[in-house]
Amino acid sequence: MTAADSPAGSGSDTEPDPPGLSAAANELIEAARAGRPRAVARLITAVENESDALRPLMAALAADTGRAHVIGLTGAPGVGKSTSTAALIGAYRDRGVRVGVLAFDPSSPFTGGALLGDRVRMQEYALDSGVFIRSMASRGHLGGLSVAAPQALRVFDAAGCDVVLVETVGVGQSEVEIAATADSTLVLLAPGMGDGIQAAKAGVLEIGDIFVVNKADRDGSQALIREIRTMISLADRGPEEWRPPIVRTVASAGEGIDELIGALDNHRSQAEASGSWQQRRLHRARTEIEALALATLRRRVRLQDGTELDRLAAAVRDGGLDVYAAADRLTRAIAASV
Amino acid sequence: MTAADSPAGSGSDTEPDPPGLSAAANELIEAARAGRPRAVARLITAVENESDALRPLMAALAADTGRAHVIGLTGAPGVGKSTSTAALIGAYRDRGVRVGVLAFDPSSPFTGGALLGDRVRMQEYALDSGVFIRSMASRGHLGGLSVAAPQALRVFDAAGCDVVLVETVGVGQSEVEIAATADSTLVLLAPGMGDGIQAAKAGVLEIGDIFVVNKADRDGSQALIREIRTMISLADRGPEEWRPPIVRTVASAGEGIDELIGALDNHRSQAEASGSWQQRRLHRARTEIEALALATLRRRVRLQDGTELDRLAAAVRDGGLDVYAAADRLTRAIAASV
Repeated sequence: MTAADSPAGSGSDTEPDPPGLSAAANELIEAARAGRPRAVARLITAVENESDALRPLMAALAADTGRAHVIGLTGAPGVGKSTSTAALIGAYRDRGVRVGVLAFDPSSPFTGGALLGDRVRMQEYALDSGVFIRSMASRGHLGGLSVAAPQALRVFDAAGCDVVLVETVGVGQSEVEIAATADSTLVLLAPGMGDGIQAAKAGVLEIGDIFVVNKADRDGSQALIREIRTMISLADRGPEEWRPPIVRTVASAGEGIDELIGALDNHRSQAEASGSWQQRRLHRARTEIEALALATLRRRVRLQDGTELDRLAAAVRDGGLDVYAAADRLTRAIAASV
Repeated sequence: MTAADSPAGSGSDTEPDPPGLSAAANELIEAARAGRPRAVARLITAVENESDALRPLMAALAADTGRAHVIGLTGAPGVGKSTSTAALIGAYRDRGVRVGVLAFDPSSPFTGGALLGDRVRMQEYALDSGVFIRSMASRGHLGGLSVAAPQALRVFDAAGCDVVLVETVGVGQSEVEIAATADSTLVLLAPGMGDGIQAAKAGVLEIGDIFVVNKADRDGSQALIREIRTMISLADRGPEEWRPPIVRTVASAGEGIDELIGALDNHRSQAEASGSWQQRRLHRARTEIEALALATLRRRVRLQDGTELDRLAAAVRDGGLDVYAAADRLTRAIAASV
């Protein structure tokens, strides 16, 4: 990307050092890069609010991103996603790794930085500047999660997180999509959750790079593992392709977490070697660009002159104009405003 | 809307009689206008498939629309929406009124034209050309329900339906929005559904033009009616404004259905007199135009040259370009393609 690619006058269009960034914004960027929690929190709040101030800030952070290992963590309610997240945080912290957590699960106990179900253990992290925890609502974003999630990831990434855990409940379609754009996706299952793997929502099983059978000390875990193994063996997969391992954990007791981290490291190494790592990140960037462009266009629809739109709407209502013709005029007006 | 408003060469842009409609398309339009069920079904299938063929067809139908009384019917699962819909169909048919039914409730027994829960009663309608029943899935539409619903309504309307019942489960936001764009919105409640009106999803109660307490022969219906009455009296409402009545029904026995139709007729008369009828239809047309314009733009995003988009995505992935700058370029490319 050269300077010649960018149109004259669009100052924040290139990297590094976008002109026009205020002293306060520069300070915020520096503080976030240094991993100061309040700066990170302020940036993610800007992401949530879809603030206009975000644009130059994200431009300034762009060069600092791409380092974190983004780990998606999904599964039906009750499989132990939050407990597993807490166990992973602990294990990564023991290794001196800086961790970001982004929870999109509305029922997640990660709220306001506190893990309610596990409050005692989490209190140690409250004062640990090596852990950032943020819960985001999945509603109310003009661009949807597909805009907010990658931006929040990028903030954690620029703040020096080596690992970012993204916890989503494996129910909504957009939550599944987020988990699917991670570098490594963990699909959690647990015995006794009804009808075995049938209990997992369609679409969730396909995205698993690693299957985690949590609560593996309970009855039915062997049968569940057999079911998953059969499903994995049935999938059409080349000899060079990653074959999802099954890791047994009892997250509440910290069992199996080291093995899980080992499986994650393996997945990263193999994906980097095969090129699928970069390919998936390309896909993630493309998805994000598309979502952001659409959000911009959606905003422009809302900004259209109400009088003209009312005139079109009245013509459609009264049968004098068909809705496609009206939409074409609106589309052209939006295009002309870009 | 005059011919001068439309750009030269865009043949299907004006009404009536768009040039370029094939003989087969003209035949389909004529058959739909005559209320022939197969033609109506084919048009709604085209709506569901977001077919390109739809554009000239909808243009041809535009002048025939705007006559039907669109009645939204919403409420939590279990309140008796489908039974009430069936009872309304029967009562309207007794009055010689042609009825269309559009069900967006995934759990609705209206599927493939058959009402499972009430199959015996519905069999008489299967051969009744005065009733059109269609169930639509709420997923998979590029434009979402906000595009598909008004188009399907328009097909029923052009086919001569005097009344179109739109059944949505009062749970999803888009379902609530559809119910809210009806000419008259019925909010159904029933006693014994948990915590009285608290059981209704936030946002549903606000859109009711008429409240229906179904299963009114059961315990708790008086308490429920008192609750609704209190809620209605608390709402801020001018002396000229419509005050939602509460109608008691036992839909399974046909009780209260005549009163419900009377309340619907009252609502229509008063709304037409006050101008709110036309105002709401203006809002509906505006919402539809916006949704269709956005769907067009979304399609253009997908049609963008993959190579250029991949180049942008690679630059974003590698930190050489921030995602806003990339989205700006995509947005400009889309605008240039309109």
